[in-house]
Amino acid sequence: MKNAFYAQSGGVTAVINASACGLIETARKHPDKITKVYAGRNGIIGALTEDLIDTSVESDASIAALRHTPAGAFGSCRHKLKGLDQSKAEYERLIEVFKAHNIGYFFYNGGGDSQDTAHKVSQICNSLGHQMICIGIPKTVDNDLPVTDNCPGFGSVAKYVAISTREASYDVASMCSTSTKIFVLEVMGRHAGWIAAAAGLAQDDSNDIPLIILFPEVEFNQQLFLAKVKHHVESQGYCSIIVSEGVKGSNGKFLAEAGGMDAFGHAQLGGAAPVIANLTKDALGYKYHWAVADYLQRSARHIASQTDADQAYAVGKAAVEFALQGKNAVMPTIVRTSNNPYTWKIGSTNLAGVANVEKMMPPEYISRDGFGITDSCRAYLSPLIEGEAYPPYRGGLPDYVKLKNVAVAKKLGDVFSI
Amino acid sequence: MKNAFYAQSGGVTAVINASACGLIETARKHPDKITKVYAGRNGIIGALTEDLIDTSVESDASIAALRHTPAGAFGSCRHKLKGLDQSKAEYERLIEVFKAHNIGYFFYNGGGDSQDTAHKVSQICNSLGHQMICIGIPKTVDNDLPVTDNCPGFGSVAKYVAISTREASYDVASMCSTSTKIFVLEVMGRHAGWIAAAAGLAQDDSNDIPLIILFPEVEFNQQLFLAKVKHHVESQGYCSIIVSEGVKGSNGKFLAEAGGMDAFGHAQLGGAAPVIANLTKDALGYKYHWAVADYLQRSARHIASQTDADQAYAVGKAAVEFALQGKNAVMPTIVRTSNNPYTWKIGSTNLAGVANVEKMMPPEYISRDGFGITDSCRAYLSPLIEGEAYPPYRGGLPDYVKLKNVAVAKKLGDVFSI
Repeated sequence: MKNAFYAQSGGVTAVINASACGLIETARKHPDKITKVYAGRNGIIGALTEDLIDTSVESDASIAALRHTPAGAFGSCRHKLKGLDQSKAEYERLIEVFKAHNIGYFFYNGGGDSQDTAHKVSQICNSLGHQMICIGIPKTVDNDLPVTDNCPGFGSVAKYVAISTREASYDVASMCSTSTKIFVLEVMGRHAGWIAAAAGLAQDDSNDIPLIILFPEVEFNQQLFLAKVKHHVESQGYCSIIVSEGVKGSNGKFLAEAGGMDAFGHAQLGGAAPVIANLTKDALGYKYHWAVADYLQRSARHIASQTDADQAYAVGKAAVEFALQGKNAVMPTIVRTSNNPYTWKIGSTNLAGVANVEKMMPPEYISRDGFGITDSCRAYLSPLIEGEAYPPYRGGLPDYVKLKNVAVAKKLGDVFSI
Repeated sequence: MKNAFYAQSGGVTAVINASACGLIETARKHPDKITKVYAGRNGIIGALTEDLIDTSVESDASIAALRHTPAGAFGSCRHKLKGLDQSKAEYERLIEVFKAHNIGYFFYNGGGDSQDTAHKVSQICNSLGHQMICIGIPKTVDNDLPVTDNCPGFGSVAKYVAISTREASYDVASMCSTSTKIFVLEVMGRHAGWIAAAAGLAQDDSNDIPLIILFPEVEFNQQLFLAKVKHHVESQGYCSIIVSEGVKGSNGKFLAEAGGMDAFGHAQLGGAAPVIANLTKDALGYKYHWAVADYLQRSARHIASQTDADQAYAVGKAAVEFALQGKNAVMPTIVRTSNNPYTWKIGSTNLAGVANVEKMMPPEYISRDGFGITDSCRAYLSPLIEGEAYPPYRGGLPDYVKLKNVAVAKKLGDVFSI
């Protein structure tokens, strides 16, 4: 009879709480094996500081409501444990806290760094002879984890970006005869262009949106870009441009950093979108509007993908099932078993093969001119945004849950500084 | 037996096409009185250039689909007709085109300027002895038309902003222990803070979001603002800030213009949000994220308010009913008949009293410290975001209609330059 530890790590998503829901609901079905699920308050920091949340005091209804609540219900953090040597004190502290609270299951819900941490925790438990099942649960809007076909959290951002691109494009199309001709939307993606690629789904046989996507994988070519903008505006009256925050110029610098200093000597205020918008205006004279979606895109649970929400729940559920089967140092994966009709199942992979590997966009997903997506990319992306997982509403607003997040009584006297 | 002319004017909304739908569907029920509805391609420009769209070739299904399609299906424009003397040639041209196409009903769907134009067209028809029924149809996300309780288009933006504020705030709350503590969202509203006010609805008894709203009605006070940000971060760990694009500093300039020049000598790239975010960082050192919703907020048909969509349809329908009753130079209004439960009906007002009057936020809707909304504001706003008017989906995306927009054969030989 052991307790389980669960923590959310890194940037949160619209559906990471669905994974928490899948995990806790499944654990509650096995009270003979898992006594309680403790969550780390603010992720792994909660484990290091012995600030654990007792999820057992939450009602079944509250836990069920996590399935439709965005962001991290227990708090997340940006805190990367380094190598076993460099961060030795932190790993030892984790083991100490886990021992004090009779924790035999370690579930870590995050991206590449988190899978690495889960892997290292399993290694150190092994080497210290401490019995612990360590399972990584995939989560990242960046969609850059290897092995798994896609990452929970990504499908919902992709859906948001595709819908927003379509809607804003209809807007610009209405206005372009006498007003705005250029609309620029900046989306997340420092290294990989998965999120920007999703904007390509806004185009289909129902419309002819003139769209340019700027990927971080493609060095920004100002001349080709402006020629394409001009072509779209001259032939269709307007152009929608989706720019990934990670797009770099030929000098290797982020476009968002391109501007220089303002009148006060501050580095210029951010955003790749205003840079692209101004560039277009200066060269071609077109009136523009620009938007930066930022956190709106990854927290937009109101229009989450049903596929994504289902998969997020499934990996949380599978994590507990794997643990109870005695699997260790693994991560549930999403396996695409058919593309048309789209079907998927849960697979499993060793953490060793996941840690610190980034999955980039395959070159064949980017069109030859570098400004769009290919049919194979579309075939990959389309199923991931299928279905609308609407949350319940109260008073015109989504009825998201706020948990009690009651602390577990501390057992260790000392204070651990991060 | 006369034809009708319908045009969309100014910035489009998530539900202006619902007004078009209400108008065309109602007109189709009276073929004995209205032969055809012609739409102006790109608004009033289409009338001036004799570029009319024959809506009679669109199927009933396509017209019905307008009810869930955002933006302006026939194109809109920013083109203000001035006084009867200054723009005499344009008014005369309108009458010429209307005569040539046997148009006896003029429906103009827009904000304050458009109501003014509709009023002037009715005056000139009167003075020329040309029989014409002129009806204005209210539309504006700015919610600043007088007489009507609220304006179609506003409720959906309000809903989008309230939901986005709640979702992003949950996100920041998750991250604030080790990362972002400040989230800034810029929303529309150059003159009136109605849209910014809607962010206040994100707070209710389900949460304790620490929120600051910056209204264009309130001169920006940096010292009070920073003190409030600091208080929120110190007591709750984070702060969400909603800034209206129209916020001005004590120098009377838009904050968005505050920065100065960049390294190339360009005026600094835009946005009140990055200005506020940087200001906060410089003064208090907090890590920030910022978003600019721009067109996303007013085109977000995917989460339109049911109240708003219903009212937009109703004013389009009422416009035709008024016309057939022989009412002239009027605008349908929305009349709030009860607040709890919320009920409304369609009223009518003379265009003369609507033209060029801006309805600002009443001072009693803004909290004493200038950073939030009052209970009376909440009571006014809440019903307007009630209900989710979801569009149908296909392939994970809203299934918006694109009309054929077939041109009516020209009858006048000459070309009219705008």
